[in-house]
Amino acid sequence: MAGGPRWDRRNLLRTGAAALGGAGVGWSAATAVAATAPAPPAASGPTTVVGPPAGAQTVPALGRHQTGIATTPQAHLALVGWDLKPGAGRRDLARMMRLLSDDAARLGAGRPALADTEPDLALHPARLTVTFGFGPQVLRTLVPAQRRPVLEELPAFSRDELEEQWSQTDVVAQICCDDPVTLAHARRMLLKDARPFAEVRWIQHGFRTARGTVPEGTTSRNLMGQVDGTVNPTEADPDFAPLVWTQTSDTDPFAGGTFLVVRRIRMQLDRWDRVDRAGREGVIGRRLDTGAPLTGTDEFDAPDFSATDHLGLPVIDPASHVARARSSDPTQRFLRRAYNYTEPDPRRSTGEDSGLLFLAYAADLARQFVPVQQRLDELDRLNAWVTTVGSAVYAVPPAAPAGGYVGQTLLEGADDGVADS
Amino acid sequence: MAGGPRWDRRNLLRTGAAALGGAGVGWSAATAVAATAPAPPAASGPTTVVGPPAGAQTVPALGRHQTGIATTPQAHLALVGWDLKPGAGRRDLARMMRLLSDDAARLGAGRPALADTEPDLALHPARLTVTFGFGPQVLRTLVPAQRRPVLEELPAFSRDELEEQWSQTDVVAQICCDDPVTLAHARRMLLKDARPFAEVRWIQHGFRTARGTVPEGTTSRNLMGQVDGTVNPTEADPDFAPLVWTQTSDTDPFAGGTFLVVRRIRMQLDRWDRVDRAGREGVIGRRLDTGAPLTGTDEFDAPDFSATDHLGLPVIDPASHVARARSSDPTQRFLRRAYNYTEPDPRRSTGEDSGLLFLAYAADLARQFVPVQQRLDELDRLNAWVTTVGSAVYAVPPAAPAGGYVGQTLLEGADDGVADS
Repeated sequence: MAGGPRWDRRNLLRTGAAALGGAGVGWSAATAVAATAPAPPAASGPTTVVGPPAGAQTVPALGRHQTGIATTPQAHLALVGWDLKPGAGRRDLARMMRLLSDDAARLGAGRPALADTEPDLALHPARLTVTFGFGPQVLRTLVPAQRRPVLEELPAFSRDELEEQWSQTDVVAQICCDDPVTLAHARRMLLKDARPFAEVRWIQHGFRTARGTVPEGTTSRNLMGQVDGTVNPTEADPDFAPLVWTQTSDTDPFAGGTFLVVRRIRMQLDRWDRVDRAGREGVIGRRLDTGAPLTGTDEFDAPDFSATDHLGLPVIDPASHVARARSSDPTQRFLRRAYNYTEPDPRRSTGEDSGLLFLAYAADLARQFVPVQQRLDELDRLNAWVTTVGSAVYAVPPAAPAGGYVGQTLLEGADDGVADS
Repeated sequence: MAGGPRWDRRNLLRTGAAALGGAGVGWSAATAVAATAPAPPAASGPTTVVGPPAGAQTVPALGRHQTGIATTPQAHLALVGWDLKPGAGRRDLARMMRLLSDDAARLGAGRPALADTEPDLALHPARLTVTFGFGPQVLRTLVPAQRRPVLEELPAFSRDELEEQWSQTDVVAQICCDDPVTLAHARRMLLKDARPFAEVRWIQHGFRTARGTVPEGTTSRNLMGQVDGTVNPTEADPDFAPLVWTQTSDTDPFAGGTFLVVRRIRMQLDRWDRVDRAGREGVIGRRLDTGAPLTGTDEFDAPDFSATDHLGLPVIDPASHVARARSSDPTQRFLRRAYNYTEPDPRRSTGEDSGLLFLAYAADLARQFVPVQQRLDELDRLNAWVTTVGSAVYAVPPAAPAGGYVGQTLLEGADDGVADS
């Protein structure tokens, strides 16, 4: 190789990936430190990145849980919804999941997929994770009753205006990555390997603030400008595990799993524009600049719903979003992992269709999510500017067993003869 | 404010933006250094970012040139094409450009637009640039002959399969940013301010490798996996200015301008998959791993078109992309600034429509770009896997004069009474 002073990307990558992924701590540990005790920024001078580039970072396996759930959200999302082909059975789904799980594991480690046609696009994992889930119909028809987790479709919500094109699918993959090129490649590999078994119903793209734009740990904003996601359990929270992971015995085939709800929430940004700042803050119950509740000064202050102003009126409107979303029942919480979306749409006066891909994980959607959504459906001042146009729920199995695939514990029993690898 | 150890985002941002933008060097200078003499990476340990976050970085004004041209490409692109409303005249376009230029200047500096409805989304410029251009029809009908730069539509290319939805528009804005949330907000502000004057024909989204994924200065890859953009003039190159900026007298109203060609190039990735690695490298004339020409070992080695193998056959096929794109005429070069695109497309077997938004800037498209494209149209082995479905050209005026707007020197003369602000 000619070169001399040229940067050796390949060696760097290997070193970096080993250093970060191998030890099983790396990025997660570093982030936790940064979030709790950020170093004071240098007062001047350009940003300098020390150490391996962010593209080498991998998300370590999380024991029995799939990655991409407790993982600090990456900048980019591609959510792929498939329907199994007519007549596809348990064996077909098992084959598909074996292929896709292998792709996900390799690509997440910065290695090409087995039949990778563009292996050079796999070398910068940039925290790539792929998280799989099964829809209720798959559970009912392809998972034997004795191994079947309980997952019902959501009840009807009166304000939903659901569009068929964004509706429930059989299988979902939540692909997340800090790099859009790596993400595009991973998505393409998964789409290709799923093609013999399933048809793509939808692909939903989402984005959050890019890695490095703001200090790690900063709460993201949605396209209405709101700080969105302040109240969200973190892994450090003792409630995190019971809120997110199903609490079953270790021998349960779904132990370590969770459930995902996907809601595509369209924003009427052109009408939101007509509301002044004070009006918007009243609708939400929080300040727009800091995200603090109207009764506090800091983003993480607890809202005081009993506080009144000089007229004796509540400072936080009981019909505001924050008041209606909050419950005194501590089980009515879940892990949000939302992304913004915007797509060109010439039919709209704004030229765009924008909104939020609301993704949330919970150990029990019926108990944790549904009551909150029912309250918001009944009354929430924000409803005048948002409409849910897509809705789906999925059972998210535990991580693949060693040498196996995601969903294996549901699809294969000790002696029901599905194994075919 | 409660807080104490909490990171003060607002102060940090101000400090960072001033440090980077104010001195007029900052990021650009830092990048140039990094690209020529990368520091050896630390052998282990997580990536640490020292200094202000990347979101605070601004692109300094470049004297008489618009930003977003010589600027090292940002990670994300939104290319917006507008058609002026029927009956809109020179005065209307001047009003529109005054509004949009002001938006671009403020947002690029990390300040809200004048009538910004989500000012909190404007605070992390992340190298935001907005670059404006006018189509040939605008030049012919709204710019007086004595001030009109010469811009002809491209000749027909036999292999193009142009789709009306991606065709020539009256006005274009190339919005680029390292952060997708900042980009979405800027795009929305511009769309809103243009609405009284123009209709959106298309919005084309593109992406490159995220900032921080690989060391600064690494050549990007396209979705076929190729290292794409190796031969590209940089500002350090003495040929850069004559290749990119129009070489007219300082009193010419277009002095400091350039021309933009936009080609939407769809890739047939499903068929590209069937070609093996050696076959692909033969089609391109470069190695897939390093991007080196087949006659060299390093990405930046010059291809040797006279080299033959042991059978006496040329190592680089004369019909390969690299051989056909190259000219011995040094004026047949231009500045490429391409982005990848991928959109869900259920009509395709891949589930996606993917390709390249080829953007190139040149002082004279007819002399620099057209001969190259004519050669490729005639013969290029890569043609079997790519199809141009959109094509447009724009005159890109110099930067706004002090206190003025982009395009002012074309739209307003000393005494033709257009000024109306």
